[in-house]
Amino acid sequence: MMTAQLLSGKELATKKREQMKEKVKDLVEQHVTPGLAVILIGENPASQTYVRAKQKACADVGIYSRLIERPESISEEELLQEIDQLNDDPAIDGILVQLPLPNHITEQAVIERIAPEKDVDGFHPISIGKMMTGEETFLPCTPYGVVEMLKEAKLPLEGQHVVVIGRSNIVGKPVGQLLLNENATVTYCHSRTKDMRGLTTQADILIVAVGRPKFIKVDDVKDGAIVVDVGINRVDGKLCGDVDFDDVKEKASYLTPVPGGVGPMTITMLLENTIQSAQQRK
Amino acid sequence: MMTAQLLSGKELATKKREQMKEKVKDLVEQHVTPGLAVILIGENPASQTYVRAKQKACADVGIYSRLIERPESISEEELLQEIDQLNDDPAIDGILVQLPLPNHITEQAVIERIAPEKDVDGFHPISIGKMMTGEETFLPCTPYGVVEMLKEAKLPLEGQHVVVIGRSNIVGKPVGQLLLNENATVTYCHSRTKDMRGLTTQADILIVAVGRPKFIKVDDVKDGAIVVDVGINRVDGKLCGDVDFDDVKEKASYLTPVPGGVGPMTITMLLENTIQSAQQRK
Repeated sequence: MMTAQLLSGKELATKKREQMKEKVKDLVEQHVTPGLAVILIGENPASQTYVRAKQKACADVGIYSRLIERPESISEEELLQEIDQLNDDPAIDGILVQLPLPNHITEQAVIERIAPEKDVDGFHPISIGKMMTGEETFLPCTPYGVVEMLKEAKLPLEGQHVVVIGRSNIVGKPVGQLLLNENATVTYCHSRTKDMRGLTTQADILIVAVGRPKFIKVDDVKDGAIVVDVGINRVDGKLCGDVDFDDVKEKASYLTPVPGGVGPMTITMLLENTIQSAQQRK
Repeated sequence: MMTAQLLSGKELATKKREQMKEKVKDLVEQHVTPGLAVILIGENPASQTYVRAKQKACADVGIYSRLIERPESISEEELLQEIDQLNDDPAIDGILVQLPLPNHITEQAVIERIAPEKDVDGFHPISIGKMMTGEETFLPCTPYGVVEMLKEAKLPLEGQHVVVIGRSNIVGKPVGQLLLNENATVTYCHSRTKDMRGLTTQADILIVAVGRPKFIKVDDVKDGAIVVDVGINRVDGKLCGDVDFDDVKEKASYLTPVPGGVGPMTITMLLENTIQSAQQRK
């Protein structure tokens, strides 16, 4: 009976952020301070928490961050104009619109208005298209973070059977494409999949992004599998992932904890994209 | 022992083109003649054949087609200028650059220069990005044709396990994404996949796009599977697919022939995209 090694996103995030401080210092010496604009509409408490975390992370590594708070009542046209201004602002290398947006605003229109060269979230169709064909572009932060964690642990990807559960546009679909580009064999499962267990138990690497607490149990996992838990759920005031950690850890060879797994990598890759954008500006 | 029903792309293409004639007639009456520009660089005989076939298909349904032939020696800048002109030309609804291009020209730069609203090949990163997230856009012609064939035969897609062999940017990757958006469970296999047969024999729907003659044999296929052969290979002067037709037909429930399977659908969906573009112009 095996006990999984932890894949700690927290540790890798700390390491990467230390390296970023040096990169940012170099850029600042060359009079290029990386700048991230974060647009927050309304007063959703979860969004406020995420935005504060992003601002704090920017400050920690020396990235200039600008918070643009606007009321729930803002019109789509006004929001688009804010984005136009940021697109033209030479102090801003990355633009992030905190989702979700109020119902009267079309998210897709907003995302598509961001200049692709400042699309550090990687959600613009151009970024997605280039990601899919393997061209250089800003990669979406969570999938990018997952791939970085697997690479940091020197886990082989080529020829490995990756099973992704969940097919959201921001996690499931892109993480599958990124790993396909790394020469993995990739299976996408989701709510309509028949015999999901028959597929998850074939996975060398199982990536779970469904948003259902402790959805994956020990019987869903192959002996020695690498299990990456992208879920963050709150149950009785405690955070837990989509994987039943205590159950699965006896069978998996590697496992990400929640919290401290994929979570810290998402913001880290946002910082990375912003710095990369600033380097391109230079 | 079963003998597969034929999935005839040829028949569906004929049916669709008849319907298109009516649509085009309506558009012409409203003074909107759909127009397709085809750019052919150099004298590659295969490219010349494809381009002629596209022109002929346009003529058959009443689409105006304009052939722009330029010598192998054209510079990238000159080619980009040709595209700019077509982007601005109100008589042109679709622009197709016949690939491959000479080595001194960057294909990606050329593809990205085509205005997305005239990208009837569906190869622009914006088109690919939107396809992936399920937004309305021009779909790449071959994958689009495959999905149309499956739908025409009223074959269920939701919850079916689709295994795609091959992960090219123009067939394998997009056909998987389109079927994922149709609620199929999707597995991508390719040259680096270990135990490919272990996966192909699980497929309810097997889509083969590898460019290797008769690569898929009866033992690679599950009893009653639907097998779609995207390959077109020439062996001893005869066309054959990536599937060993005579071998597999005894086990599959549905099977596309080569020729007369997916092939005729590709040009048909190009016509469809061009007409759709003209309708949007109107």
